[in-house]
Amino acid sequence: MRVQIREVALRDGLQIEKPIPLSAKLELLAAVAATGVREVEATAFVSPSKVPSMADAAELAAHLHDYPDIEFSALVASPNGAKRAVAAGLRSIEYVVAASDAFSQANVGRGSAEATEQIDDIVAIAHDADVTVEVIVATAWDCPFAGPTPPQRVLDIAAFACDHGVDRFAIADTIGTTTPGRVSSLIAQLRPVIDELPLGGHFHNTRGAGLASAYAAVQAGVTRLDASVGGLGGCPFAPGATGNIATEDLVYLLRDSGIEVDVDLQAAVAAAEVARSVVGHDLPSALLRAGDRITS
Amino acid sequence: MRVQIREVALRDGLQIEKPIPLSAKLELLAAVAATGVREVEATAFVSPSKVPSMADAAELAAHLHDYPDIEFSALVASPNGAKRAVAAGLRSIEYVVAASDAFSQANVGRGSAEATEQIDDIVAIAHDADVTVEVIVATAWDCPFAGPTPPQRVLDIAAFACDHGVDRFAIADTIGTTTPGRVSSLIAQLRPVIDELPLGGHFHNTRGAGLASAYAAVQAGVTRLDASVGGLGGCPFAPGATGNIATEDLVYLLRDSGIEVDVDLQAAVAAAEVARSVVGHDLPSALLRAGDRITS
Repeated sequence: MRVQIREVALRDGLQIEKPIPLSAKLELLAAVAATGVREVEATAFVSPSKVPSMADAAELAAHLHDYPDIEFSALVASPNGAKRAVAAGLRSIEYVVAASDAFSQANVGRGSAEATEQIDDIVAIAHDADVTVEVIVATAWDCPFAGPTPPQRVLDIAAFACDHGVDRFAIADTIGTTTPGRVSSLIAQLRPVIDELPLGGHFHNTRGAGLASAYAAVQAGVTRLDASVGGLGGCPFAPGATGNIATEDLVYLLRDSGIEVDVDLQAAVAAAEVARSVVGHDLPSALLRAGDRITS
Repeated sequence: MRVQIREVALRDGLQIEKPIPLSAKLELLAAVAATGVREVEATAFVSPSKVPSMADAAELAAHLHDYPDIEFSALVASPNGAKRAVAAGLRSIEYVVAASDAFSQANVGRGSAEATEQIDDIVAIAHDADVTVEVIVATAWDCPFAGPTPPQRVLDIAAFACDHGVDRFAIADTIGTTTPGRVSSLIAQLRPVIDELPLGGHFHNTRGAGLASAYAAVQAGVTRLDASVGGLGGCPFAPGATGNIATEDLVYLLRDSGIEVDVDLQAAVAAAEVARSVVGHDLPSALLRAGDRITS
């Protein structure tokens, strides 16, 4: 079995941090690239006033051709963001749709249904430029404002996304509340809707269950997982959200469970150290403290 | 599905701490009892000079009849410890055997084979007094000194334990290195050896995979899990070992995954706060920081 890890430290990881210089991002990017990871979420083309840490998206994008072996993606929250991403040379974009109306309103100023309909425009913008589109459903299990998300909301977004030709689909536990049982259940309901479409998972470790949920997702058929070195990250619009699952903790868990990944464990720990250095504070990664079992 | 949680904060949780007064242990015990948990590992009858935090084992045992609804157990490391536990009125003992020779020597001053043979004496001492015996295999996956443990070592101890009439069997990830795939694999190998004997799991979250491993164990047929409120604990003889899986994090994960437990989540968080207070330092529990999803 094989899982594709997408490194999200540069986007989801840095999003909640105060802006760091482009040179520091490039240092982190070099460390991330050295892990062998094949997919990297590089930045977000969103409102610079709402997310100042991503204001340098186009500048950063100009440096991505230094790494021809990595497929870079950028997050967008609107057709306008998609246009900016395409213009900046990105070959892959992620469009986030919140399944919760309350979260969607707080996040992008429009409801979930309206955000879902924009998939159509975004796919058109991207595919016209031969750029791939992934739809990521935020608050796929719970919303910090509205509580549990009815699974049917996620299924409806998935059906719309499939009907409009997206290339990949993913479900995100935005506030880190889901658990393995709920993950398995939602994926079992999703699979008939998305059929053979590649399915990804995005988990936060806020309540300790992030890695257990990620593993449950893999057992249920997810072949793509987001993670950030050091467990850097959170969500500025999600109260209490802290910590993506750490790339190195995920690699450790998957590797020793017999699942193949591209990412080298020691290089991921080294990249986590760079992440800790560029943000200037401690990070929640377990491996960063404890080390690999071989060297413990 | 139902999982029996055994609360180990008072033993494994406090073992590595500097000794706290009996009154503080009784305060923690009262908080733990209020969670509704049905099994509590109360103390250890071991060398007071090697484990000074457990020197008050007999004194503590005298207070356990205040909680008639809880089944208390105590850890022992030798026949002499078993005699002391029985004399102190314990109705259930756990005998720990390390699968690794190097760990066994460091821990109790004799090799794994010799420690295994003592199961015979310990079962005789316990059963003569109508006391139940659980054998727990320490370093069931990895040893901090010798590296990976050959699974056959664990199977051999299990076979010996079964042949000598133990009442329960458990496998412990003493240094927090195992992962879900290795857990599933070892349990699949164990089941034919132990047949219908109740099987428990003991996991540490040292490398972030503790809860994922616990959930994998449940899926593979484990019906008993150790956990400590707040994630209190470690092992004084295991370099780098930190943090049992936190009771409240485990309850959150199991409850939301549709698995029944006796322990009340809010009461477990309250007990974790007591644990933090009695040891006087922060604890690794995720729920203690983030709270339940309902209240987030």
